[in-house]
Amino acid sequence: MTTPHNTIPASLSQITLMMSPRIRRSPFYEATVRDGVSHFTVYNKMLMPTSFGNLEAELQRLMSGVAMWDVAVERQVEVSGPDADRLVQHLSARDLSKMRVGQGKYVAMCDHQGRLINDPVLLKLSDRYWFSLADSDMLLWVRAVAGEGNFDVNVCEPDVSPLAIQGPKAEDLVAKLFGQHIRDIKYFGCIETNLQGIPLVLCRSGWSKQGGFELFLRDGSKGDTLWELVKSQGQEYGIGPGSPNHIERVESGLLSWGGDTTPDSNPFEANMGKYVDVNTSVNYIGKAALQRVAAEGPHRLLVGLVLDGTAPSAWPLVERVAV
Amino acid sequence: MTTPHNTIPASLSQITLMMSPRIRRSPFYEATVRDGVSHFTVYNKMLMPTSFGNLEAELQRLMSGVAMWDVAVERQVEVSGPDADRLVQHLSARDLSKMRVGQGKYVAMCDHQGRLINDPVLLKLSDRYWFSLADSDMLLWVRAVAGEGNFDVNVCEPDVSPLAIQGPKAEDLVAKLFGQHIRDIKYFGCIETNLQGIPLVLCRSGWSKQGGFELFLRDGSKGDTLWELVKSQGQEYGIGPGSPNHIERVESGLLSWGGDTTPDSNPFEANMGKYVDVNTSVNYIGKAALQRVAAEGPHRLLVGLVLDGTAPSAWPLVERVAV
Repeated sequence: MTTPHNTIPASLSQITLMMSPRIRRSPFYEATVRDGVSHFTVYNKMLMPTSFGNLEAELQRLMSGVAMWDVAVERQVEVSGPDADRLVQHLSARDLSKMRVGQGKYVAMCDHQGRLINDPVLLKLSDRYWFSLADSDMLLWVRAVAGEGNFDVNVCEPDVSPLAIQGPKAEDLVAKLFGQHIRDIKYFGCIETNLQGIPLVLCRSGWSKQGGFELFLRDGSKGDTLWELVKSQGQEYGIGPGSPNHIERVESGLLSWGGDTTPDSNPFEANMGKYVDVNTSVNYIGKAALQRVAAEGPHRLLVGLVLDGTAPSAWPLVERVAV
Repeated sequence: MTTPHNTIPASLSQITLMMSPRIRRSPFYEATVRDGVSHFTVYNKMLMPTSFGNLEAELQRLMSGVAMWDVAVERQVEVSGPDADRLVQHLSARDLSKMRVGQGKYVAMCDHQGRLINDPVLLKLSDRYWFSLADSDMLLWVRAVAGEGNFDVNVCEPDVSPLAIQGPKAEDLVAKLFGQHIRDIKYFGCIETNLQGIPLVLCRSGWSKQGGFELFLRDGSKGDTLWELVKSQGQEYGIGPGSPNHIERVESGLLSWGGDTTPDSNPFEANMGKYVDVNTSVNYIGKAALQRVAAEGPHRLLVGLVLDGTAPSAWPLVERVAV
């Protein structure tokens, strides 16, 4: 992917997308249209709302109230079966030997040269794993590795679509919806539950630092029902729609894989080094290459940047800096 | 990818895309903006023009004149190195043992369960192969297979961006640009050449049945120059911009991978059976599964459909039919 893509200024103020069966709609799509979605991006071959027409109000809700986001584009690759533990470890540049059911971990998935090819949250459920993914087609990667290595596993993209509830009032709303016990869930902790019969996994997670949960809807046909339920119960907290906010996430130092990184970035360059275990007895794809990078130090480093909100397309953040 | 994506009617007449560094622009992007592009799709994480505001005129040029299309989204995965022949065969459900330099072949790439994961044209150049791809990230697939199998190869996405010249007058224009010898190039035949110093591969190919060539630009910085050169030399033939035309391609029976197929389709269902070699001594990924499908017959079959041009989002074409 050497085509220059960060350097050419946009020549059109509006890009109009022609829909196609190749670009999927989220189970929350109809609800977001009703609630006034104005802009989308395409992420994992699915439409994702990026604005409801008032970015300032959306940021305000995230910072001081509660916002609900359609993040169904955060697709899952599910791994189950007898060799699931072994395959998931092989795919993850992190020692998972002590990972328990109900835990989530932020993991670097790397290729054999140590390039960062995705940075999912990995959830360990009672009988399966979910890699909850950034914008690259890891279903192909995981199936290739499983098939070539004859792992006895099932690998699929299940019908699972996260709805994020984010902001300082998110926990109160989620406790109202599910009960007070949810306050005990640790960061990235997850439970398999339901909401008025709608099957889902509830996880303390989300692409902001303002706190909150993600509801991993397990039945796409219930998207509209779930959206309306969260919206109605959230009225007392002033809930409203929004989307992962690039002002907040840059100020919070959250990585946007593919946005901040180049196709050749390694996890150390992307400031993910603390999540990469190179001094471990477990083996995984890319370990030797990552050990070399760790020993030499990265040649460039992602550095933070506070935007003024007027130029959200002005990065990449990847800059060569002395390290 | 079980999310229903073909069944929900669009609720918005216009989808406005918010640009992001994750969505790349083509080397021809600025030229297409100057020439009045009105709609895009996102394909292989890159913007692709789908209309210049007058679909009827665009179809007319394709059917009776000559059209130029920005199909840079047709990305290449390049394989080179000592084990390139062996890896490329392993990845292709077709006997390539007699493939010569300068040839292209339409190949089914399948996973271990025989699912069709891409349907590229494979080009064999003097020192490398290019899989010229439909809309799925085969760079991940090919690197996974190469890495797990310890193939001694280089695998990359090179700086290569096709510009298609299509229609009954395309050959005359290409002969004017490159010389009369190009008339001898066979279907899917390709030569490494240049145009006023712009490096490219010229191939008799393109996603229509109206005849034509694709110019595989090998230097993205020359996109604007190449576009203007083709445009100016094509004036006497009435050239104008367009894009792969879904009316023509459906009537011609050309497959749109990911549009016509489901994530679980096999190549027999997609009417690619004649390009799949199951009775061959060469081995490749998915062969055993494809032999089973070939023996049993597919359970469903892609069938043609003539559209009236008013409902381009009305497929999928994949229908269960008695076979």
